[in-house]
Amino acid sequence: MTYKYYMPARIISGADCITNNSGLFKTLGKKALIVTGADSAKMNGSMKDVISALESECIPYALYDRVASNPTVSCAYEGADYAKDNGADFVIAIGGGSTMDAGKAIALLTVQEINESDLFSGLYENKVMPMAFVPTTAGTGSEVTQYSILTNDRAQTKTSIATELLFPDLVFLDPKYTKALPVKTTVNTVMDALSHAVEGMLSVKGSFLSNALAAESLRLIRECMPQLLNAAEQTKKTAERPEALISVYTREKLLQASLMAGMVIAQTGTTAVHAMGYSLTYFKNIDHGRANGLLLAGYLKLVEKVQPELTARILSLIGFSDIGQFKELTDRLFGEKEKISEYEFKKYSGMAMKTKNIANCIVTPTENDLTAVFLESFN
Amino acid sequence: MTYKYYMPARIISGADCITNNSGLFKTLGKKALIVTGADSAKMNGSMKDVISALESECIPYALYDRVASNPTVSCAYEGADYAKDNGADFVIAIGGGSTMDAGKAIALLTVQEINESDLFSGLYENKVMPMAFVPTTAGTGSEVTQYSILTNDRAQTKTSIATELLFPDLVFLDPKYTKALPVKTTVNTVMDALSHAVEGMLSVKGSFLSNALAAESLRLIRECMPQLLNAAEQTKKTAERPEALISVYTREKLLQASLMAGMVIAQTGTTAVHAMGYSLTYFKNIDHGRANGLLLAGYLKLVEKVQPELTARILSLIGFSDIGQFKELTDRLFGEKEKISEYEFKKYSGMAMKTKNIANCIVTPTENDLTAVFLESFN
Repeated sequence: MTYKYYMPARIISGADCITNNSGLFKTLGKKALIVTGADSAKMNGSMKDVISALESECIPYALYDRVASNPTVSCAYEGADYAKDNGADFVIAIGGGSTMDAGKAIALLTVQEINESDLFSGLYENKVMPMAFVPTTAGTGSEVTQYSILTNDRAQTKTSIATELLFPDLVFLDPKYTKALPVKTTVNTVMDALSHAVEGMLSVKGSFLSNALAAESLRLIRECMPQLLNAAEQTKKTAERPEALISVYTREKLLQASLMAGMVIAQTGTTAVHAMGYSLTYFKNIDHGRANGLLLAGYLKLVEKVQPELTARILSLIGFSDIGQFKELTDRLFGEKEKISEYEFKKYSGMAMKTKNIANCIVTPTENDLTAVFLESFN
Repeated sequence: MTYKYYMPARIISGADCITNNSGLFKTLGKKALIVTGADSAKMNGSMKDVISALESECIPYALYDRVASNPTVSCAYEGADYAKDNGADFVIAIGGGSTMDAGKAIALLTVQEINESDLFSGLYENKVMPMAFVPTTAGTGSEVTQYSILTNDRAQTKTSIATELLFPDLVFLDPKYTKALPVKTTVNTVMDALSHAVEGMLSVKGSFLSNALAAESLRLIRECMPQLLNAAEQTKKTAERPEALISVYTREKLLQASLMAGMVIAQTGTTAVHAMGYSLTYFKNIDHGRANGLLLAGYLKLVEKVQPELTARILSLIGFSDIGQFKELTDRLFGEKEKISEYEFKKYSGMAMKTKNIANCIVTPTENDLTAVFLESFN
């Protein structure tokens, strides 16, 4: 088995890990650019903890809080300009995948002059601002990957900047910041992590090592599923604070599952599922995790024809004996599906076939296969 | 769960991975110091592949082939002097744990003036020679740890230099170099890896992440055990080339198991088992892996009293339902045991109690507990 493994980020995990390790920020630089979305980092206590830690170390900071979901190329350039204007020399990104991915691109663009037309070229100088990440959702795994995925209007999809420069230096994982995460966001992000673990096992770059991490990620997600399902059902009944039905211990397991699934895709990349999902997000504004989660059962059906044993192993790790049971789970979690025409699915399939993800698939799909997966998934 | 994770080495795994990635040596420096033992790297093809790769990249090298088992502090200083004399600016260590550990100490001592009395102090400047490692046994995991363990005559034991500086930059894992490894060495080194995985699960620093790696390491070792046992039995019957009874696929799995177990102890450290084993090696010249392997069943018995569920989980990962079965396995693998007096065991127990390893144990042992484990293990 030929493979490569590299993941140099330092993980610090546990309650109050930012406060207890504030001294580490000094190793990154002299002035921080804090990168966040508009609200959540302010609401969940993470930004307060970061700022207290910086203040206790006498490190000044500037705040760029303009990252939206599915961040755009122009957001990355704007953030980099802001970092330069404020003399920041390291980045602290607090949030979900969108914020971390924006933080990575900002860390790159602040110290390198890269034209927009070259942004996804893979050709960069060997420099980047140091980065510390505080994930506040459990799904993206961006904290342990070399990818920054941005909305690329030129290509009408989401595109990756992929370079080892983008591994962050420090990652702080404290489950308390995910406590108040709405059930819908929790479910969507978990399904992103699940998709990473499954796609890693379906990638030609999978290895003993990545498969071990993927298997444990799936095992942890399986353990959390009863609470997630219950919370999802209660949300439909408009229960008050249904997110409180997901315990902090479950939240912690989900963060760990997301971390390990991120470590997987840092080695394996993603497959057709992600390539297909990007169109659903770009054209239909379907949340990234939901998009992947909706496609997975149909994609597994395609894989099963050629790789029945591998498919059975994956299903058993998630706790199922057949794909139908898994489909039932995603149906229950995601509720009513978006209406999308066959014409559109064909277009998305054609776009997905042109991505590098296809060469990554252990079972190589045809364009018609992908359309069939789309149709199956949205039926 | 509070934990830290850091393992920045780049792993390249697979057949001919050195030849296929020769360009990577250029990223480390201009002149290599190849560090090996006297013979094995010359016999198993690994040194030839390294030298061919260096020649194809026009990188000169010097050869320091004087590392013996359980390398001494003076070997490390001698190697560093040799590196300086030859103007080497990076290290390529090829061999088992002894060679890699010596390579690490040489990489440190070549660029830092450290007195022998300060060698284990943990206080070092922030510089080291870049390192590439080629493990040719499956057990030590040194290729992914920050430890260099040297025979320390002043303290009459083996002592660790522990600093993140000692993580190598590059690791090449090619199972073909382990093909001709004698059965006895194969068994001893596997039991070292098994001990790492088990001790990681018995460490207070264990985490979801390290436990996932440990579990997969144990699973892989379990899969290899029938071939190992058969080869061990055939060796007793003086079969010709019994090492050929262990397939290359099994060798590959063992290398992967050793890698993952190394990643575990890089996070968790080792426990009382290693602390006890060091005396067996220092005073009785018992191979390191054999020493740990002989102690494990007795140690698990001690842990079981307080942590029956965890012990059962570990045993089940190795494929057993009780400690007796595991003891039977180690008895079969290791054959007749050394004769050591109770007086000596008491001395070793006292020494082990003074190590940092004790604070690392999920179940804190007393000195009498350790003596009991010794006595039980050698009965």
